[in-house]
Amino acid sequence: LFLAPQSVAFVGIPRKSGPGALNPVDNLRNWGYEGRIQLVHPQAREVAGIRTVNDVALLEPPIDLAVISTPRETIPAIVGDCGRKGVRALIVTNQGFAEADSRGAELQQAMLEEAGKSGARVLGPNTLGVYNAFDRFTSSFMPHDRTEAPVGLVCQSGVFFVGARILTGDVGLGVDIANACDIDLTDALQWLGNDNRISVIAGHAEALSGGERFLRATAEIAGRKPIVFLKTGRSPEGARAAASHSGSMTGEDRVADAVLRKAGVIRVDETQEMFEMIRAFMRLPPMRGRATAVVTLTGAGGIILADAMETYGLKIAGMSDSSLRRIRAMSPEWMPINNPIDIWPATMKHGMRNVYRMVLEDALRDPGVNAAICVALGLRPSEAERLGVVDLIQELSVQYDKPILVWLYGPEAAEAAAALERRGRSMAVHSLERAVRILSRMASYHQWKIRNVVSNR
Amino acid sequence: LFLAPQSVAFVGIPRKSGPGALNPVDNLRNWGYEGRIQLVHPQAREVAGIRTVNDVALLEPPIDLAVISTPRETIPAIVGDCGRKGVRALIVTNQGFAEADSRGAELQQAMLEEAGKSGARVLGPNTLGVYNAFDRFTSSFMPHDRTEAPVGLVCQSGVFFVGARILTGDVGLGVDIANACDIDLTDALQWLGNDNRISVIAGHAEALSGGERFLRATAEIAGRKPIVFLKTGRSPEGARAAASHSGSMTGEDRVADAVLRKAGVIRVDETQEMFEMIRAFMRLPPMRGRATAVVTLTGAGGIILADAMETYGLKIAGMSDSSLRRIRAMSPEWMPINNPIDIWPATMKHGMRNVYRMVLEDALRDPGVNAAICVALGLRPSEAERLGVVDLIQELSVQYDKPILVWLYGPEAAEAAAALERRGRSMAVHSLERAVRILSRMASYHQWKIRNVVSNR
Repeated sequence: LFLAPQSVAFVGIPRKSGPGALNPVDNLRNWGYEGRIQLVHPQAREVAGIRTVNDVALLEPPIDLAVISTPRETIPAIVGDCGRKGVRALIVTNQGFAEADSRGAELQQAMLEEAGKSGARVLGPNTLGVYNAFDRFTSSFMPHDRTEAPVGLVCQSGVFFVGARILTGDVGLGVDIANACDIDLTDALQWLGNDNRISVIAGHAEALSGGERFLRATAEIAGRKPIVFLKTGRSPEGARAAASHSGSMTGEDRVADAVLRKAGVIRVDETQEMFEMIRAFMRLPPMRGRATAVVTLTGAGGIILADAMETYGLKIAGMSDSSLRRIRAMSPEWMPINNPIDIWPATMKHGMRNVYRMVLEDALRDPGVNAAICVALGLRPSEAERLGVVDLIQELSVQYDKPILVWLYGPEAAEAAAALERRGRSMAVHSLERAVRILSRMASYHQWKIRNVVSNR
Repeated sequence: LFLAPQSVAFVGIPRKSGPGALNPVDNLRNWGYEGRIQLVHPQAREVAGIRTVNDVALLEPPIDLAVISTPRETIPAIVGDCGRKGVRALIVTNQGFAEADSRGAELQQAMLEEAGKSGARVLGPNTLGVYNAFDRFTSSFMPHDRTEAPVGLVCQSGVFFVGARILTGDVGLGVDIANACDIDLTDALQWLGNDNRISVIAGHAEALSGGERFLRATAEIAGRKPIVFLKTGRSPEGARAAASHSGSMTGEDRVADAVLRKAGVIRVDETQEMFEMIRAFMRLPPMRGRATAVVTLTGAGGIILADAMETYGLKIAGMSDSSLRRIRAMSPEWMPINNPIDIWPATMKHGMRNVYRMVLEDALRDPGVNAAICVALGLRPSEAERLGVVDLIQELSVQYDKPILVWLYGPEAAEAAAALERRGRSMAVHSLERAVRILSRMASYHQWKIRNVVSNR
């Protein structure tokens, strides 16, 4: 009912519509919503070309979902009215409840009691509600693009709805639990967990409520699809701010950390990492261990990778003996052949594409290697013909079931990165350090899955 | 002589030229180098349309700089020949010296002795040499774009030359010290320090050699322009790899850390941070303390900022009393007015642009505030008219001498970020956490400068 209502009523809505008016009806029209829309407005006869009524009592059932946005004092009564109309799903967008003051807390409680009488469920208050790109429904007054991406989002702030493009990448299904007075983090995770159109879940919360229920439900979902999670309010200042944002008790950060780890959730440290990890889980095959081969054209790059592997706990996979022998034969006799080995001198003598393919394919074939990090040149087309390896990596990325991350450098690095991702399963990264962090998190998730999902059967 | 030779000789050069041939003469032509070019090749009569000679002895003086790229065994003799021709600056690009094996170390020593006889200085070996966009000179065989950016680069690997676009942003003057057998990190830093076309220096090294001399010279430069530095080889694996990359002894990382801190160098943890910090120093006014105002449209953003400020050691600057009073009057009566305050409810009642300008200008005027982090919407033009603040931030960024970092979210965040940076002095960031890290590093640098530059006068 929340995510794909056939019939929706907005109680309280801007009088104006069109660009800049932030009218949710405009957003539904732009998305091509095909259900029935009814509107309640105290004065207007018509909003956005739809006739309005001035009282919930005048709405025509059946109504699957009501989106309520009226002054806070009026809300408990409206919730009661909706219940009597048979509405079983309510989204309350207003601020001014438990996050605000003691009167707000009372009103939140009163609203819940009213909902309880009819058995209606409440999402919010203080929420943008939901969006569902697949079924063309959104309750949000903020405009955003509709993309049927297999990413589900649970968040405790509208910033993730509006800023999806920069925070998580495109999202297909989103739920803003906000104050979470009734529908909570666990409920929303279960909606996304049970939806087969969703293959990766992005989560944000200021508090992890629900204790044992949260842990059990989340672990069950994490066994089927990765959950990438940003838990905020970790600092004292942040915790104080969270109390007046969503009314959340953030709790001790190391407790949250332990719970998330136990539940198999991939906790990220910052928003940028969230974006990266979601992309990684969408594009890449599983990372089944910590041994990572490095194919580099630069010794300095190998050193940066070695440093990052120590920080994030990956191992450099040694090359196979046959590969080492072949590279040794191709390299100048003076060259020390250690891992991570710089193949540049060999490529200059025997051709970039030959040497690159040999080394990368050898690594991917090796059962002791779980993933590869590749350094490659992003050059102008004229030079790329001789020195480019983008197509070669694309080809190997579909032949072998191991993650390949590629750092491209050179005058056309950005163009080469975009070209790389147009085919195959490898992923371009902005920096070598990021590649290592991504693989390390993926390895931890896989380890958890093996231990937990297998042991529970 | 190294950076802007009037006359250059290449000793050893590819026979082919054109796309993919990696011939340095092509790069000089593409850049419009106006000095004289002479070439030595054992067989060819002509390379890239230039008549060659087959012996250094046949070159015509005066030659400011020789770029040597011949098999390693031949190099000491060629260095001697060049010295006798009066060449005082030599770049040796070959690998296979101290970084390789004991024979390589002997050859490096022999080459140095030959150079010593004539007083010639050697850059390298194992280097791409130099590039100087201002004077249209490069010794590198790898193609790159020429941009007269006020950024100088010292590095210990060619990857920084080729990958400048992704590692540091555009660079005007670059020096690859590589094995640093003669010209070392300190020399190269001094070249850049004394060049008035350079206002920010990017550094990369695997070893900090030179002890007291390095410390003194670097601190002197850092007093005049910021040095952003990536020191690699911090892990045991990385250190081992560095020995066979540039022949460097990386040393204990905490020693390096202490030296860099004492010298006023801004040490970065990863390549991506290098890129960010250089941009920040180029665009922003100095960060004179740690008190940072936050102007946010989202409570969740405020919490993320508060967490990051604890991690990186910034303080949230409280709003002035007058600002607080005004915001309180504009906000719903139930709203708790704490820092970082979410101005969204006030903007919905009183207009985005009015409220935003008031709060931001008030913060910038406040002598207790050192910088501002702004959260703003990146919307489509139709909505941006009512809700966009990009032009307003641009305007204030030139009126006030304090850094302003802006995180833009929404469907057109990337476009809005690009538009923001086209005018004014503010800077767009990919994430709020990055904004905090940037300001924290800038504050540390300013603190060092006050303490050291003032006390030395």
